[in-house]
Amino acid sequence: MKRRCVEVDERALHKMIGTIIDPERLEDDCAVIPCGDGRLLVASTDMLHETTDFPAGMTDWQIGWMATAVTLSDIASMGARPGQVLLAVGLDRPERLRGIMEGARDCCARFGAELVGGDLDAHGELTIVSTGLGTVEAAQIVRRRGARPGDIIAVTGPLGEAQAALVGYDRHWKELLEPQPRVREGMALARAGVSAMMDISDGLALSLYDLLGVNDCGFSVDTARLPLPAGVPEDEGRELALYGGGDFELLFCAPPGILPVAGVDVHVIGEVIRERVVLADGEPLERRGYLHEWGG
Amino acid sequence: MKRRCVEVDERALHKMIGTIIDPERLEDDCAVIPCGDGRLLVASTDMLHETTDFPAGMTDWQIGWMATAVTLSDIASMGARPGQVLLAVGLDRPERLRGIMEGARDCCARFGAELVGGDLDAHGELTIVSTGLGTVEAAQIVRRRGARPGDIIAVTGPLGEAQAALVGYDRHWKELLEPQPRVREGMALARAGVSAMMDISDGLALSLYDLLGVNDCGFSVDTARLPLPAGVPEDEGRELALYGGGDFELLFCAPPGILPVAGVDVHVIGEVIRERVVLADGEPLERRGYLHEWGG
Repeated sequence: MKRRCVEVDERALHKMIGTIIDPERLEDDCAVIPCGDGRLLVASTDMLHETTDFPAGMTDWQIGWMATAVTLSDIASMGARPGQVLLAVGLDRPERLRGIMEGARDCCARFGAELVGGDLDAHGELTIVSTGLGTVEAAQIVRRRGARPGDIIAVTGPLGEAQAALVGYDRHWKELLEPQPRVREGMALARAGVSAMMDISDGLALSLYDLLGVNDCGFSVDTARLPLPAGVPEDEGRELALYGGGDFELLFCAPPGILPVAGVDVHVIGEVIRERVVLADGEPLERRGYLHEWGG
Repeated sequence: MKRRCVEVDERALHKMIGTIIDPERLEDDCAVIPCGDGRLLVASTDMLHETTDFPAGMTDWQIGWMATAVTLSDIASMGARPGQVLLAVGLDRPERLRGIMEGARDCCARFGAELVGGDLDAHGELTIVSTGLGTVEAAQIVRRRGARPGDIIAVTGPLGEAQAALVGYDRHWKELLEPQPRVREGMALARAGVSAMMDISDGLALSLYDLLGVNDCGFSVDTARLPLPAGVPEDEGRELALYGGGDFELLFCAPPGILPVAGVDVHVIGEVIRERVVLADGEPLERRGYLHEWGG
């Protein structure tokens, strides 16, 4: 799973990067680039390493699939349609390349994208950087910023399944290793008029705090409404849903009137509030999730 | 320096990738994507690792600069105008990030691009993947394919300087560590109507063989006409120019009538011939350059 750097470092690094890159550009899952004909291009790049991102036992095909799914999920979270994917592969053993490329190609094909190129390099540890491009009508793009008090908070499916697999619930192994980015759902939600959206990759709690960081409102969730992983005791399931990494569901806010959205499995889990705080069952939610380790 | 995998592996891997990605897509330095308004989007991604790509003694700023220059050079080689750069950084120590990002930002600014985002990860070995986007009028794009017998073969500047620095000619240290992608030159050459173009990153010899691989003609160069690195004995300079890695000059073919091209330093080094072979001074040119090592 993607783990983040420890809290103090991440905040400091993010703030520092904001002195170099326009900070507004750093708010979303993708960079947004004017495309010239009323559309916007969105671009995302994601780096994955074998030891930190690919659970032991994954096939090369699954590694290629996952590396591609990560960037398609970023594109989905903006409400955009995936177009092209580039794959830079730092390869420890040349014989792994075919499986990785086939997994990437199949994931692209499944979600309407095309694998168009990349770079190849030798590396001691398998490292993959996937870069995805997508397009969206300027009027339909959805960002993390945009939530309004009174909006519902919702997700597109069960949370905590990937983490459940990691802690031993084998029935969720496939959700962990062959994640399904919510591409169709993201586009449908954008067309329906959701107000803010992101994908959940480091757990619901950290994602809610990410939304808090860029909106002038707060987020109150009711843990009894969280869609939990099947086959896991409820208390443990709730813990996994709030703090587990590796999910590919979309988290979004929307005016209640737009629901239901045809063809999208919407689970309402709470409400956007005026007070700038993240609450779970009325209490401040712990800010934790899966963290990178420096020098690891 | 960028080193390539050993010959047999590289050919085999490239052929294998051609069964997964449309082989025509693999011919050029960038992927080419229709943009909707008569323009094309070009996209390039390049992976660099500390141990294989960044000579000892580089500053973090220079590392950020070089990682960005590599992708801007790919864009330049298509005759395109750079637009946006994304940087995925696998960071061994968080304190290196500022220098790297500043170097990337400054390189972008120098060549008219904008650093718009990226990804950050912890990694034992510093690893940077730069992805660049550019645009070009569909009628002006230049590819590796397109050379015709009778065209001149030319380069935009001295060859072998980067390699000269690596073997001890300190006066060329700056050319090695702060390479200048030929962005302005690439656009001017495209407008002037060159027939084929690429950037030279693994040495002139390998680049000529790359052109041979996608054109139905051959390439004959006159080594006496090669622009050599200053301050290096002529024989050694010729060796560095032919086989040294790390240069950022453009190699192109063009109908003789388009020369000179205003504002571009054009060094004619040979002629495109009918026979499908690469010749230096009338003899077959050795096919070697800088190679990646697997498992290194």
